[in-house]
Order: sequence, then C-alpha cells, then structure tokens
Amino acid sequence: MGTKATVKALTPEQVKDAGAQVVLANTYHLYLEPGDERIKNLGGLHKVMNWSGPTMTDSGGFQVFSLGAGLNKKIGKIAKHEELLLPESHGRDEDEELKPSRAVIDPDGVTFRSYSDGSAHYFTPEKSIEIQHNLGADIIFAFDECTSPHEPLHYQKEALERTHRWAKRSLEYHASKPNAETQALFGIVQGGRDENLRKESAEVIGGMDFDGFGIGGSFEKEDMGKAVEWCNGILSKEKPRHLLGIGEPEDLFMAVENGCDLFDCVAPTRIGRNGNVYTHEGKICLMNAEFRDDTRPIDTECGCYTCKNYGRGYVAHLFRAKEMLAGTLASIHNLHFIIHMVDTMRSTINSGDFMAYKKDFLAKYKTK
Amino acid sequence: MGTKATVKALTPEQVKDAGAQVVLANTYHLYLEPGDERIKNLGGLHKVMNWSGPTMTDSGGFQVFSLGAGLNKKIGKIAKHEELLLPESHGRDEDEELKPSRAVIDPDGVTFRSYSDGSAHYFTPEKSIEIQHNLGADIIFAFDECTSPHEPLHYQKEALERTHRWAKRSLEYHASKPNAETQALFGIVQGGRDENLRKESAEVIGGMDFDGFGIGGSFEKEDMGKAVEWCNGILSKEKPRHLLGIGEPEDLFMAVENGCDLFDCVAPTRIGRNGNVYTHEGKICLMNAEFRDDTRPIDTECGCYTCKNYGRGYVAHLFRAKEMLAGTLASIHNLHFIIHMVDTMRSTINSGDFMAYKKDFLAKYKTK
Repeated sequence: MGTKATVKALTPEQVKDAGAQVVLANTYHLYLEPGDERIKNLGGLHKVMNWSGPTMTDSGGFQVFSLGAGLNKKIGKIAKHEELLLPESHGRDEDEELKPSRAVIDPDGVTFRSYSDGSAHYFTPEKSIEIQHNLGADIIFAFDECTSPHEPLHYQKEALERTHRWAKRSLEYHASKPNAETQALFGIVQGGRDENLRKESAEVIGGMDFDGFGIGGSFEKEDMGKAVEWCNGILSKEKPRHLLGIGEPEDLFMAVENGCDLFDCVAPTRIGRNGNVYTHEGKICLMNAEFRDDTRPIDTECGCYTCKNYGRGYVAHLFRAKEMLAGTLASIHNLHFIIHMVDTMRSTINSGDFMAYKKDFLAKYKTK
Repeated sequence: MGTKATVKALTPEQVKDAGAQVVLANTYHLYLEPGDERIKNLGGLHKVMNWSGPTMTDSGGFQVFSLGAGLNKKIGKIAKHEELLLPESHGRDEDEELKPSRAVIDPDGVTFRSYSDGSAHYFTPEKSIEIQHNLGADIIFAFDECTSPHEPLHYQKEALERTHRWAKRSLEYHASKPNAETQALFGIVQGGRDENLRKESAEVIGGMDFDGFGIGGSFEKEDMGKAVEWCNGILSKEKPRHLLGIGEPEDLFMAVENGCDLFDCVAPTRIGRNGNVYTHEGKICLMNAEFRDDTRPIDTECGCYTCKNYGRGYVAHLFRAKEMLAGTLASIHNLHFIIHMVDTMRSTINSGDFMAYKKDFLAKYKTK
C-alpha cells in the first residue's frame, strides 16, 4: 500500500500506530519515478521512507500489464473495459491515468511505455530483480505475467509457461548476487481461473527454492476463493503465502479461511481518501448529507486515533472543504479497521473461534 | 493558520509537536462552511478539531474585504491587481478562488457574496461576535474594516471611524452575553499607512476595555515596521499585542523588535505545500532538480521531525509524485522553523541578546 515509497496521506508513525506490519512499494512506479538507482543512492527504501519495519516490493509485472494495456499480435488486444476488471486494489490508484499503450511480450520480457511520459522500457526477470535489489526491500517478488481473466485458455497456458520460466530466472539471478543474503525472494503463482493451471503453477512455483509465495492474478470476485484454495492446497504451509493486492473484508475472510498469511492492499487508504470508511455495519460515504451533524465516531466500535478523537460531522466537513486532514483521518481509520479485523482472525484461529467470528462479522457487515 | 478548523496537512499532534501554542481559525470560512451553528452543535472549535490548546478566531472582516473585492460607489473600486497587494499570508490560501464580487459597506455592516457559491450575506459587528460565540474560540476579535493601502486618506479616515464604532459595538454585544466570561475579546487597530490615523486608532481602541489587541491592515512591506511601531508606542504593554497574519522571518524580527507578542500566519504551511521550505540560509524550493539526489535534511541546523527523519531527495520525490506526505513534511518543518525562531527571539530578549541574534540570523538568511 506504499505505492510510491509512501503510504498515501500518512506518516510511517501513523501507519505503525494503525497496526501495519509491512509496507509494500511498487517496483514499476519507483523504477520510473524517482528511479531505483536514485533510491539506492539516497539510502534505500527503509531509510528514505523512515520505516524501520519490514518492506516488500512487487515484481513490477502487474503494473506493466495493467497500466500498459497489452496490445500484441500474438495475444490479442486487452481492451480497456477488460483492463478495468483487474483488481483496482492491486497497487493502482486514482493518480494513475489509464492511457492505453503498448506492452509487447517476448520470451525474455516485456517492452512497455511509461504511464506518465510514454517513454519506452524493457523489463526482464533479471531487470526486475536488479531494480528490487536497488530498492532494497526485505521481501521481493519474482517477475511474472498477470493475465486478464478474459484471456482464452491457450493464452493462459502460454503466459503461465512464461511466468514459470521467468520465476526460475528470477531465482537464479537473485541467488547469484550478495543481496540474496539480506533480501527474501517470493515466487508468484498464476494460472487465472483454471483449476488445472492453478494447481500446475502451485506445483511448479512451490517446487522452486523460494522463501515464500505470492498468489497473483486478476480475479473476478467469485473466482478468487477457488483459486486461493487450489493454490494453498499444494503450497507448503511452512512458508508464508501472500495474496497479492486483495483487501476488502469479505475477501480477507475467504483468503484466511483458505490458508493465506499475508496481504497487501491500497483499498483502505484509497477509498478513505474518497470519503469511504469501513464500519462494523458496512462501508459508509462521509460525503452523504446525513453525516454533517453526526457527532458519533466513524465506527462506534473502533478504537483508532480517528474514532477516539473526531466525530463524523467534523471529518465530513474536512472532506467537503477538500482539506488534506480528511484523507489522513479516514485512511488511519480504514487501515486500523482492516488490520484489527485480521488480528482478530488470527486470535480466533488460535482459540478455535474463527468460523464463529466470520459468521458474526459478516452478518453485521453489509456489503453493497 | 487553521483556516477551516484544521491546520492544512497536519494533525493537531503534529502542530503541537512543531511547537505551536495557539490555532487561529477563520470566522468567514467557518460561517460559510460548515456553518458556525453546526460547529457549535458538534461541540465547538476545540472539540471538533481535537485541539486542547488555545484557539482564536478572527473577525471575518479581512476576508469579507479581501475576498469580496470591494465595489461601492462611495469608496470606488478596489481592483484585482490591488487586491493582490493585500498580504497573502492573512488567512487566504490557494484554495480560494479570487472571483471579484461586491462587498457593499453601510454604517452598520457589510453585505458580501460568498467566495464559493456567490450567495449573499450580511456581517455586522454583532453578527461577527455571534458567529465567534458559536465557534467558541478562547480569543475572538472585534469586527473591523481592513482597507487597501491604495485607498486615499479621506477614505482611510471614513473606514477608521467605522472600525472604531464597530469595535465599540462588538465590545458591547460581547459584554451582554455569558460568553464574555469564557472568551477573551481583542480589538483591532487599523489606520493604514498614515501615522496620525494609526496613532489615533491605537488611542481609541487602546482606550476601550479589550482583553488584548490586534494590529490589522494590508501593508506594503516597507510600511509595516512603522505602523507597528506607532501602534505599540501607544497600546498598553500589559495586554497582548497580536500582529495579524504576518509571519515571514524578516517581518517577525521587525514585529518583535517593535513590541508584538502574538502572531498568526498561514505562510509556513502554505508555502510548504508548494515545496518551499525555510533554511537558516534562506528559502529553497524542493522542486529544483539540484535536490533530487540530496541526502541532507531540509535544514542542517533544524531538529524537527522532518529534518531528523527524512532527506531532501526523498521529500523532493514526494513533491514530484504529488504525494500528500510531501506537504505534511514540509509544513511540519516550516512551522517548527518559524516557531523555533520566535522562541529564540523570546529567550534572547530575556538574556539581552536579541539584537545580536537578529543580526546574526538575518546575515545568514538570504531573502529574495
């Protein structure tokens, strides 16, 4: 959720106070701006961000494909309306204009154009790992191809073979560098919505010497649970299993129930900056007139900084007045809400009450 | 500097950590949005803002005149180019579009149009105090007319007589309400650039039973020192003397040297949000390319949160990436810088070293 080496609208202290353990920054963004070598020269991700806890960077693959709307004779066009089906929560935010541009795939990597200035760039597995070495996060990811769920099966197969070859090359390149001693490398399982491909990918990636695993993909909501279940049925329980870019409450229950250990998501801060906040009864939008005179905290059951100190009416005023503090207070609340929920999942797993907690939570939490 | 009941880009804790003692919010803005009665119903300024320290509200007069570009047959037009000569630092910021509109003055008050939606409103001394009672700040100000320095002397006289009558009415209205027991009322000295009028105003306002005084006006830089000197030569040293809306380092030395005790200014946070930061060698703009690879803190002699934890290169990246944290970090630094400077003025006054400190500071500090 730390796209450009900052968790939007928050200081690292506010992120930590909300309970976050790890900050994930986007390789694609930092490569383009301010540049991975610049970050390295400034002291690396931890130092520049003033974040002493663990950090992650993704492989850059997701943004290359989702922002560089793939256009290639071999794979056919991924149209913009399909592109928008990719989970928005995966490191993309409203600052990123979705200008269609070419991302051309070859066996070694992907040529793409910058979403911001249109300049041409080329990512290979080695390049992705090199960039991630420069950035210096504690956990980095192998380069992968994230396909649209609307691609036909034959293309999903082809892409998956590439992802597996790229995983091996990422691993080999990483192992050849001294960074392997200080940075952990996670492999990414792909395979779209197809059971056979997902299981094959979990076998192949799970069989490689990664320090942990990411489950990637652009899911449609109803596919996600199955895909996660297929993958985690095969991936070792001894290594962390990260579900990439997913973070709405109902999805997190599904993922935890199906064995995931780690999550990252920009949703809490992104929807927060737009005035949408979680409550135990569902999401509310603070721009609605009904909240202007409401002295209650955002969520009456929440113990976050925002809920302890501010009422809905004041935060609604800040949003209407376009004050920066609005986004900060809503982001603090949303982060705390999600993290507190996952913390409770963890403790109820330990006490054997997870399913009861899930049932109780989701009965009150009204999704749209 | 808390225009709309929030210090832009900062939590109250960050404001306090930077050393600020008092937060000033603008009556004009809060009256229009979200409304003073709404603020009252939500619990008042202190409570909604989560600011336990002292608060102030201004009279609303400055914004009525500066944002409602005065057009009146009796006083002639204040043209936009002249309007922009009003000190920008006085509670106005870039969010406010300067749409020329009518502010019509009569003996009892001013009719003006909202800068945001064009709706018509009428402020009298009684109305200004009533609004400030609803907002509930610890220190409030009498309603005044702030003139352009380009108005002719006969108009300055006429406006000053109004300001004096309005001061008396503000005082009488305030004294008739129970709020007088909990809210202090300051009178505002006006008089433009004319020595006789300034001295007359200091005599008249200084002779009324106010709890303290504000020195108002839209100055040209070179007039300010003289005007402050004339006023403070007459105003009692036993009551606080506040210079309204002034806050650049060189102006603060001038004002303190001439007897002012209190200041408010949006400049530190406003210029900060635009990437301009104070250093002991003068202001720098973090958008300049030279800072992109600079690992030094913003000011090598500063002990603020930003300077202790972040380098110029990272903050410059945040500004280029349009990240909200950029404005937060720059505002924290600028606020700390100005407050630390004023703290040092206070301690050097006590030790007898004020003039030496002033000389030393200004010798290093290069103004444009």
